[in-house]
Amino acid sequence: MAADQKLPSKRNFAKNLGVSIITVENAYAQLIAEGFVYSLPKKGFFVTDIRRELAAGRKKDSRKEEEEQNGEKKYLADFTSSQTRPEQFPFSAWAKLMRATLKEEREGLMMNAPSAGIRPLREAIAGHLRSFRGMEVEPEQIVTGAGTEYLYGLLLQLLGMEKCYGVENPGYHKIYKIYKSHRVPCTYVDMDHAGVLISSLEHKNVDVVHISPSHHFPTGIVMPVSRRYELLGWASKEKGRYIIEDDYDSEFRLAGRPVPSLQSIDVQEKVIYMNTFTKTLSSTVRISYMVLPEHLARKFGEALSFYSCTVSNFEQYVLARFIREGYFEKHINRMRNYYHEKRDLLLKQIAGSRLSECCTISEEDAGLHFLMRVATGLSDEEICEALEREGVRVFSTAQYYADFEEKKDHIFVMNYSSLEEENVEKVIRIMEKVLVEGGGNL
Amino acid sequence: MAADQKLPSKRNFAKNLGVSIITVENAYAQLIAEGFVYSLPKKGFFVTDIRRELAAGRKKDSRKEEEEQNGEKKYLADFTSSQTRPEQFPFSAWAKLMRATLKEEREGLMMNAPSAGIRPLREAIAGHLRSFRGMEVEPEQIVTGAGTEYLYGLLLQLLGMEKCYGVENPGYHKIYKIYKSHRVPCTYVDMDHAGVLISSLEHKNVDVVHISPSHHFPTGIVMPVSRRYELLGWASKEKGRYIIEDDYDSEFRLAGRPVPSLQSIDVQEKVIYMNTFTKTLSSTVRISYMVLPEHLARKFGEALSFYSCTVSNFEQYVLARFIREGYFEKHINRMRNYYHEKRDLLLKQIAGSRLSECCTISEEDAGLHFLMRVATGLSDEEICEALEREGVRVFSTAQYYADFEEKKDHIFVMNYSSLEEENVEKVIRIMEKVLVEGGGNL
Repeated sequence: MAADQKLPSKRNFAKNLGVSIITVENAYAQLIAEGFVYSLPKKGFFVTDIRRELAAGRKKDSRKEEEEQNGEKKYLADFTSSQTRPEQFPFSAWAKLMRATLKEEREGLMMNAPSAGIRPLREAIAGHLRSFRGMEVEPEQIVTGAGTEYLYGLLLQLLGMEKCYGVENPGYHKIYKIYKSHRVPCTYVDMDHAGVLISSLEHKNVDVVHISPSHHFPTGIVMPVSRRYELLGWASKEKGRYIIEDDYDSEFRLAGRPVPSLQSIDVQEKVIYMNTFTKTLSSTVRISYMVLPEHLARKFGEALSFYSCTVSNFEQYVLARFIREGYFEKHINRMRNYYHEKRDLLLKQIAGSRLSECCTISEEDAGLHFLMRVATGLSDEEICEALEREGVRVFSTAQYYADFEEKKDHIFVMNYSSLEEENVEKVIRIMEKVLVEGGGNL
Repeated sequence: MAADQKLPSKRNFAKNLGVSIITVENAYAQLIAEGFVYSLPKKGFFVTDIRRELAAGRKKDSRKEEEEQNGEKKYLADFTSSQTRPEQFPFSAWAKLMRATLKEEREGLMMNAPSAGIRPLREAIAGHLRSFRGMEVEPEQIVTGAGTEYLYGLLLQLLGMEKCYGVENPGYHKIYKIYKSHRVPCTYVDMDHAGVLISSLEHKNVDVVHISPSHHFPTGIVMPVSRRYELLGWASKEKGRYIIEDDYDSEFRLAGRPVPSLQSIDVQEKVIYMNTFTKTLSSTVRISYMVLPEHLARKFGEALSFYSCTVSNFEQYVLARFIREGYFEKHINRMRNYYHEKRDLLLKQIAGSRLSECCTISEEDAGLHFLMRVATGLSDEEICEALEREGVRVFSTAQYYADFEEKKDHIFVMNYSSLEEENVEKVIRIMEKVLVEGGGNL
């Protein structure tokens, strides 16, 4: 029909088509709602004048794209990944608790959770922190979210986007990326053997520093108590200063008791404690949490509690049970033994191989990685490339520095959490070939 | 022990205590790691000098806090809430699919998902959009996340924090709050009977406008196609301009066919389409998604795919099956009937009550709310307060305007999604008392 052409009257149209008048009415109402038809009082319905030049050509080259942007390549061994082994996930316990949750928590499952997460989960986390880390924390201080990355985003909103955020150098590049992606001022902070340098914090005008004092990545440094107090002193000097303590793998300290958290010696409300279940359970279970000092917990309630909690109720309830009913502790113990054995196997194999001629191991007790220093004439890049060609992925500490500068010490970061035991021998042979025989297909 | 006091030698200490030397070694190593002890080569171990002034007084007034910051008050009827009724959740299908997922997808469940979500879910969503909304979308364009609120945060990083974001006035305050919380420039955009005004966008230098053309909240406006093309024209004029189309409750259009999405007539890659499963399934299942134009999907892959997906794999796999196996469509149809009946019941009761003397209903076909205009001498505030005292919560459209200015038309927004049928009569009586008898305990 042409623009501005009159449509048949509803009554006639219905009669002609042999349908009810209501059907035509609905159709006209729909056309009006979509703007294809307009009505004039006492006159009738008319076609709107719309140029359809657009319907023309939606280009559609259904190219297959880089299959999965993030999809991980398959390696024989990937020492850069902290992914957990699938078979280590406590499937049967989790499935049992899921069934119980579906059966017994129907009402709770369908009630909107508070922004910080359901109370039973926050109570369970507080209980875990008490028994496992000796931390005295109120459930009201705990905020759960779908991963630490998401919690960083919340923290930026809570502490201020104009603050200067400091991240450790060397360290995880991802944290820096997240801050940069939010366009907040962000800078690298220098470290010595005891952790971040107060002088560097002062010099670079950092307001909020992000650290992992229990086990620094990649150097493995455990921050001594003297530096901890210095840091708390630094934070106390200005009102807006804070310390974000990322306690990401403290559960897996393999020797000695866990190092007390910085949060537990903070009496000035300066430390925000963060931890995650992605390292202990599975990277595919997206639940992390932070413990806010009381005044920040209050501020969170005032300023950010309009957000919905990003963790689905199902998983919150299942995890709360998992912790409360003792499965989590059992799981951690089991995992610790498992990692302990895997590490011992790997170290024994290294010691018994020709790698012992050129490799020195250190920092093997702290978490899920140790350091391997290699005496070699090759560059880190040559080594990593040669190993990667054989299916072994590893980074040197140099790659975790902001400037990617070639270091002379050739220290490699060996995260063994995703390593499969049956591949250990093969991996050792490959490393021998590259590191001892100086080459493979170099 | 005093500061700088020497500890017993390891050998002697072990002998004295009757424990193995390894135990003492571990203990000393732990004390050194924590910084309480230092060692001097060839001399031994000494106590670090640490002032313990801190251990003193962690204030601990375990006050009970505002029980749950976000915890919702119980109302007889809450017409401001879009929470779904718990008994409407498809529990048995969901439970069945959860069991199947746990059994059959073990490997997938434990593999890190791509940043935008697992491929099967994105394929299922693309299929749903094709059959339900007539949209031709590639899975590669889809990004899933734990709620639209989270996706807004991602969008800000993708489009730029320096852009000026426009939100509809009146509209959801929450969207404005999210933008403000991220400290990005944000402004209210004026509307007329057809939706946002292009002149207002131009005048306020908006770069990215956030709209819900299928069903505006709270006015119920369905944007006519002419305004849609004007908007697309506005967006095409500048490179950095975009339209965020929030299609939040299009599944529940109760009469006529759904209005085509703005995305489906966009050939310039200007529209970002958003929708959520929190409205259709349950507000406690945190899964939403957005459809990015191709160039933005590529940019997402380059700039933001370092983020982990915020939805746990469990829920991604379960939802993918739920959609693929036809449960979702069935559920939507069931819900649509359910809401249809509830709306009809409510409207019938209103029409049959003394409310008909002073109330006019409009916009009852679009989504989960309709408008009720009241002829009254009372102010909106007086009405809302009187109703709330009786357990009925409702807002007037005036409360969704940026300036909260008192309007003379007294239009109330009646979202009936969480209303319990058995309360309808009681609610009508209360509204009669307040609106017709002019008062209750006013």
